[in-house]
Amino acid sequence: MLQEIAEQPAALEKTITEERSKVERLGQFLRKRGVNLIVLVARGSSDNAALFGRYLLETMTGIPVSLSAPSVHTLYNAKLKLQGALVIGVSQSGEGEDINRVLENCRHAGAYTVGITNEADSTMTGVVDETLLMHGGRERSVAATKTFTGQMMLFHMLAHSLGEANTSSNNTNVRLAFEAIPEWTNRALALRPQIERLVERYVFMENCVVVGRGLLYANAYELALKLMETCYVVAERFSSADFLHGPLAMVERHFPVILFAAPGRTSESAKILLERLQELHADTLTITGDAELAKLSTRSIALPNEIDEFHAAIPYIVPGQLFAALLADAKGLNPDAPRSLSKVTRTL
Amino acid sequence: MLQEIAEQPAALEKTITEERSKVERLGQFLRKRGVNLIVLVARGSSDNAALFGRYLLETMTGIPVSLSAPSVHTLYNAKLKLQGALVIGVSQSGEGEDINRVLENCRHAGAYTVGITNEADSTMTGVVDETLLMHGGRERSVAATKTFTGQMMLFHMLAHSLGEANTSSNNTNVRLAFEAIPEWTNRALALRPQIERLVERYVFMENCVVVGRGLLYANAYELALKLMETCYVVAERFSSADFLHGPLAMVERHFPVILFAAPGRTSESAKILLERLQELHADTLTITGDAELAKLSTRSIALPNEIDEFHAAIPYIVPGQLFAALLADAKGLNPDAPRSLSKVTRTL
Repeated sequence: MLQEIAEQPAALEKTITEERSKVERLGQFLRKRGVNLIVLVARGSSDNAALFGRYLLETMTGIPVSLSAPSVHTLYNAKLKLQGALVIGVSQSGEGEDINRVLENCRHAGAYTVGITNEADSTMTGVVDETLLMHGGRERSVAATKTFTGQMMLFHMLAHSLGEANTSSNNTNVRLAFEAIPEWTNRALALRPQIERLVERYVFMENCVVVGRGLLYANAYELALKLMETCYVVAERFSSADFLHGPLAMVERHFPVILFAAPGRTSESAKILLERLQELHADTLTITGDAELAKLSTRSIALPNEIDEFHAAIPYIVPGQLFAALLADAKGLNPDAPRSLSKVTRTL
Repeated sequence: MLQEIAEQPAALEKTITEERSKVERLGQFLRKRGVNLIVLVARGSSDNAALFGRYLLETMTGIPVSLSAPSVHTLYNAKLKLQGALVIGVSQSGEGEDINRVLENCRHAGAYTVGITNEADSTMTGVVDETLLMHGGRERSVAATKTFTGQMMLFHMLAHSLGEANTSSNNTNVRLAFEAIPEWTNRALALRPQIERLVERYVFMENCVVVGRGLLYANAYELALKLMETCYVVAERFSSADFLHGPLAMVERHFPVILFAAPGRTSESAKILLERLQELHADTLTITGDAELAKLSTRSIALPNEIDEFHAAIPYIVPGQLFAALLADAKGLNPDAPRSLSKVTRTL
């Protein structure tokens, strides 16, 4: 897992180089065709990448996005009206049976289908109209890392390409400069020695809450999943807004909360949450490039301030991945082979 | 909270009587107008009701549903393309600022907007094109119960009315007989003495996982939220499919898992999960009308077998509500006034 985490800058670089022209052509084609709805279909870590894709695509293209509920298709056999829809399946292996079944259903219903996968010869590539590939090589650890950031990179590229004609359709005035992300990811990797020292403090943590918002909401899901599968920590995940609606009651003195917060439009809500958590004497660990937020936290992991929230998801998940892998190691667990799991999970 | 739980059959009955003709007219109007997308906007318990609405509406009407990400509107100011969309806001108080802001945005973008609320004179009712009301009276407990099932009832009625012309558009061949639900809810209330004895066993439970699938997936979210806010238990929530993708690694001998499973199309996946959990020596509590699933569980709470999964969400959440309220009581906590919370949470 640690080796695959370290491979990410090169893997991301390669994905940009190899897929760039294909994604640009796809974006052109789809803009011409017209897309009135984007549906994302995934499970596990891929579903967390899709959650990120949802925020980025809606914000950058103005096209509404729905995260698919596979059982609506696979168990209830509903036939959805999907004329004009773009349906994107995300699967590391391309062998998730339920995901592929949903993609087939949607294609039948008139949707244009795209697969995002690591395997060029998978079942998924045979099912969809177009495939986008991650180029980081086979992933051996059960805990997904480089395929997760590869999927997020393809969402950046697709949002850029699909949204190109649409910068006026949103008020973000943001142009995605995804080419900078591999280098920022590299800088995030330099945090490893600091995180190696830090994890000792969390060796006996049994449960925690991971919080993120907006474009970093999916990071909370992904770190929580990594903590569950590699460290066996009962890790909840919330947006900072949802966390205040009820779950906050769980927080007692010393309760651990891990927060992702990049400088930008979500900073204010992160600040409000951290102040509230300070009153409750919670134990907070903030992954942030914002010095003020770091100061409000019990501990923090500092990322470069210049990484804005539209480009933060990938570099910010790296300290999370390192935290989970190194904490597993400190606990004497093997993060590459979590108990009870195998690399491809088959569900319907 | 216990009193409001007990009021639910009468409240549901009243909601059916008072709103029935309005919902039917609304369904007729929307079928004529044409709806290509339904967007649901909510937070907290209302968001759990929306999650249920998502499965029911997609299955019964074939119209794709998206659960809104409020921050896309409130923080990133994205303007979504929503011509032809039906946008439904769900809020007990009708005063959630972020929800109302999203509704305004969507109405501007050309969507038809509906509010589901308990307060006829709230800000929400002034923002939307049409309001559907719960009729159970003011809710005093911070933990939502009768407003939650009221919201779910209105989703049943709306799915029935919107889907009426569409029974051929899905393969479910199900007609919603929501009139039976108040009586089934009444029968679920009779489980109280059994649950009162049962909760003693869970007084020292610090964390747990709650699982549901398909039309009962939202019940897992809602019970987990109730356990977090009234019992301060760190309660995770998953679909049985997602649970197998990673989080299963957390499960060690005696780990508590609570499962909702109604007889029907999700039974098979519940069975697979329970068998896997038996191998891992987990401690399972299953809320089910299926005797075979009950037999595979460490403990179970039995609902009438005749309640099929399309009508199960409301009667099945009742034992969950009772479990949370009575467990809080057994722990010496006051479920009506969870620490750190107030009835209306303001977030942007």
